[in-house]
Amino acid sequence: MSERLIYLPLGGAGEIGMNAYVYGYGRPGKERLIVVDLGVTFPDMEGSPGVDLIMADVAWLEENVERIEAVFITHAHEDHIGALPHLWPKLKKPIYARRFTARIGQMKLEEAGIASNDLHVVEPRPTVIEAGPFKVQFVPVSHSIPESSALVIDTPAGRIVHTGDFKLDGNPVVGEAFDPLLWHEIAHEGEGVKVLVCDSTNVFSPQPGRSEATLAGPLAEMIAAQTGMVVATTFASNVARLKTLAEAGRAAGRSVCLLGRAMKKMVTAAEETNVLTGFPGHVPAEQAVELPRQNLMLIVTGSQGERRAASAQLSRGKYLGLEMKEGDTFLFSSRTIPGNERGVIRIMNAFSEMGVEVIDDRGGLYHVSGHANRPDLEAVHDLLRPQILIPMHGEHRHMREHMKIALAKGIASEVATNGTMLDLTGPAPKVVEYIEAGRTYLDGTVLIGAMDGVVRDRIRMALNGHVLITVIIDEDDVPLGDAWVELMGLPETGRGGAAIADRIEDELAEFLERAPDKVIGNDDKMDEALRRIARQVTMEEIGKKPEVTVVVSRLMAD
Amino acid sequence: MSERLIYLPLGGAGEIGMNAYVYGYGRPGKERLIVVDLGVTFPDMEGSPGVDLIMADVAWLEENVERIEAVFITHAHEDHIGALPHLWPKLKKPIYARRFTARIGQMKLEEAGIASNDLHVVEPRPTVIEAGPFKVQFVPVSHSIPESSALVIDTPAGRIVHTGDFKLDGNPVVGEAFDPLLWHEIAHEGEGVKVLVCDSTNVFSPQPGRSEATLAGPLAEMIAAQTGMVVATTFASNVARLKTLAEAGRAAGRSVCLLGRAMKKMVTAAEETNVLTGFPGHVPAEQAVELPRQNLMLIVTGSQGERRAASAQLSRGKYLGLEMKEGDTFLFSSRTIPGNERGVIRIMNAFSEMGVEVIDDRGGLYHVSGHANRPDLEAVHDLLRPQILIPMHGEHRHMREHMKIALAKGIASEVATNGTMLDLTGPAPKVVEYIEAGRTYLDGTVLIGAMDGVVRDRIRMALNGHVLITVIIDEDDVPLGDAWVELMGLPETGRGGAAIADRIEDELAEFLERAPDKVIGNDDKMDEALRRIARQVTMEEIGKKPEVTVVVSRLMAD
Repeated sequence: MSERLIYLPLGGAGEIGMNAYVYGYGRPGKERLIVVDLGVTFPDMEGSPGVDLIMADVAWLEENVERIEAVFITHAHEDHIGALPHLWPKLKKPIYARRFTARIGQMKLEEAGIASNDLHVVEPRPTVIEAGPFKVQFVPVSHSIPESSALVIDTPAGRIVHTGDFKLDGNPVVGEAFDPLLWHEIAHEGEGVKVLVCDSTNVFSPQPGRSEATLAGPLAEMIAAQTGMVVATTFASNVARLKTLAEAGRAAGRSVCLLGRAMKKMVTAAEETNVLTGFPGHVPAEQAVELPRQNLMLIVTGSQGERRAASAQLSRGKYLGLEMKEGDTFLFSSRTIPGNERGVIRIMNAFSEMGVEVIDDRGGLYHVSGHANRPDLEAVHDLLRPQILIPMHGEHRHMREHMKIALAKGIASEVATNGTMLDLTGPAPKVVEYIEAGRTYLDGTVLIGAMDGVVRDRIRMALNGHVLITVIIDEDDVPLGDAWVELMGLPETGRGGAAIADRIEDELAEFLERAPDKVIGNDDKMDEALRRIARQVTMEEIGKKPEVTVVVSRLMAD
Repeated sequence: MSERLIYLPLGGAGEIGMNAYVYGYGRPGKERLIVVDLGVTFPDMEGSPGVDLIMADVAWLEENVERIEAVFITHAHEDHIGALPHLWPKLKKPIYARRFTARIGQMKLEEAGIASNDLHVVEPRPTVIEAGPFKVQFVPVSHSIPESSALVIDTPAGRIVHTGDFKLDGNPVVGEAFDPLLWHEIAHEGEGVKVLVCDSTNVFSPQPGRSEATLAGPLAEMIAAQTGMVVATTFASNVARLKTLAEAGRAAGRSVCLLGRAMKKMVTAAEETNVLTGFPGHVPAEQAVELPRQNLMLIVTGSQGERRAASAQLSRGKYLGLEMKEGDTFLFSSRTIPGNERGVIRIMNAFSEMGVEVIDDRGGLYHVSGHANRPDLEAVHDLLRPQILIPMHGEHRHMREHMKIALAKGIASEVATNGTMLDLTGPAPKVVEYIEAGRTYLDGTVLIGAMDGVVRDRIRMALNGHVLITVIIDEDDVPLGDAWVELMGLPETGRGGAAIADRIEDELAEFLERAPDKVIGNDDKMDEALRRIARQVTMEEIGKKPEVTVVVSRLMAD
């Protein structure tokens, strides 16, 4: 069989988050592979209670680890780099990233106690990294974090442009502007672009995107008009926004104080790698508390309502000695990501109770998106004129819409969700295989599979409560004393007014009294029978069927 | 002491949901009381896992039950009437409502097995219900359910207008139009309006609200353009919308089928009470399956992504023999309530995978709100010219904004959240007392207090997992055999690769071997020591501190 070019998303295709894409070139089943991005997504109480981080299941990569040439990281957002310290140890391949991204990656590896010489800093195009059959260039794009990059991946089967996350911003405040000439060049070298693998996040936004630079004026004006303390939150990694906010604060005669570890880390990393220069001087919290509030501006983490971030802390009271008061202003220079509404609204209401003015992005003046809107996507299609367009970085509905745009222009396209392997060798994409592509959870300090049942049991306990039954059986297979019942997450008394635990114990006692030896002597039968009784009584008493754990202790003859 | 007029919200003030308001008139502490609305709010996995419904804690009403004259229900939305079957048995006072609302209330009481003659159907103004010192009239207002009413409450201290939920709609399709003359009359009778207690839901919406009637054209046009099956979802109780949708379907040559119990119930109740006439004939599901899909329109429940509603069922596959297919269209003729985004998006993506076109209200063509927007609220203020405005039906931020509008017009105002008792006798509201105003959960079939700890334990188990330890101690206070450990919601193995349960058992065995008698003999000390060991080992192994239940069984000498 001849060689082929394959594409396999393991994360990020069918969701916005945990990006992980694989490209391969070679004979079927023997393709040499590269990985693009290793990101995380965030858990929620509904689907993944107690989980710390969610990332792609890389079992397929582990099975084929000998075929992997390298890992490329497009930018330092958590959904692109966050899984590095957790998944890289399973792969141990060279990692390539630009300077700022590499710095963040290095910090993550160090925090996880991983010493690695495999993280390589790459200069942008025209620098080329050779990785097996792949020749890869990092192409600067504008986004909501410095040094975001598209990848131009040249293969024997043609050129792939993997956009990463991007927008078209001619003046992004920090970092490189969108450069149409550069893209024109990429489109016209050699045989042009065979495949465009393209960000789909904002495909439903019908207006052209706005530049980061348009925010400076409105922000400065709004901040200058405030008389109390001003507190602004945005994504910690949006270094350009931090700069715009800080400059607006300084222009209004305010000292600026950054609150929240993630934010300070980002600014430091951006300054150390020279992507951020001229960031206004800022004061530490200890100094900020001494300043008159009308001369102070805080820039804080927690734009998504995260409970432990600075904004949530301030909504609950003092944080590092700083406190919001009536007449202060709190600005969300951000958009609430779907699913985070409750946490954000909780904070808004807490501030409202303090008499703090809350300003959000309702009017569209104080935030711009980091992703290309529909007209911008179309501009990129037209600029690159690819033979094939593969939508990525989107939920199914985004990718499908993006595919429809491509098809309408006569560009071959296919929606490939996580686990779908496409053959991109021919003029149109072909599905060749489905890989089991699940999710891996970081739970405390260990990785568990999403389908292991651990989290399912947690959800069941949360919905139904947990009943524990212990019974002691003596050497002669006779119950010793009564069964003992403990409840967790269930009311103590039911509709009859009697204690539920007592009611279950009574029923169990009655059962044990008349249960035949072959039941008493059999752990499985005991487990089933006792469980059934506990669920029945609880159902009668409170209309719920709880989870039940039965412990039968059997005394052994010495 | 002289008599006073009081207002006490027990629910609905500081949240959108579980409305329950109390008015009183009389000597302090001896006021005669009326209750307006007894609604529910809906649980979520984050704050109230396993809970079925949330309602106001009416302990204060129970304590003062002898002082209650009556309960008035403004309209049949769940957040105004849903708690009736659960809370009315604690009060057992006459209930007043208009015909459609009373019908829904009656159905709820009957479903709960409550036979009551206390539910009275009231005709609208000029009919007056006397309830102690209160004279109450139901005044028709337009909203997203038939027969919604404001209450005009005349008291010796002056006239209160309690708006209930309302919008200004001159052509609401079903039910009574907004009638400015009527409101003008109410404002100019006697001494006019002393207190306006007013819906605040849409105070942040800057444009005047749109009429329900504006939807007919766009809906008809859109539906006529479809070639596959059309499925539309909206709130089951929005009978006007159901009618508009059904008429648009019929006009496009489609048979209409209603799916979902709540929806059929609402249409039936509306037809039986004559608030709905001329609803297009519709076919049952059994008949619908036989029809060509291009001639069929389904109107289904589940606009908020509810897992068990018809729209979610259709997104997962067949429902009553009906199935969505490529080329079909699914319309959300609704707005997603904050907090429900995840469920709605899940459905959208499932339909996207099926190749179904999903149309939502992004363009503002296919849904209008049932609440008055800011300019509409201002129009009502100007029409009624109250001395005092009390914002209700809103989160804190909505009520605060509403208060600011009032104050700017020279109307006295105060934000009173649940539990805040206001004295409304004088020219401005005065806070006179704070009542403990919590939440009550319907959990299965029983009511529990939100602060009882039951749900807290569920959340903890969901976040941390649950470890069970059983130890048997013999007659001589010597451990009999080893401790036994079971895990629920925790991974089996930790970082060392060893089974966590075994690791805990080993540590417990070591402890029990050297524990002094005074520990072994003391249940509390044993509990604390064993719990600490289990948490420590689990922390080492997986970085989590689980919930622990310890059962020490002590054998007794016969």
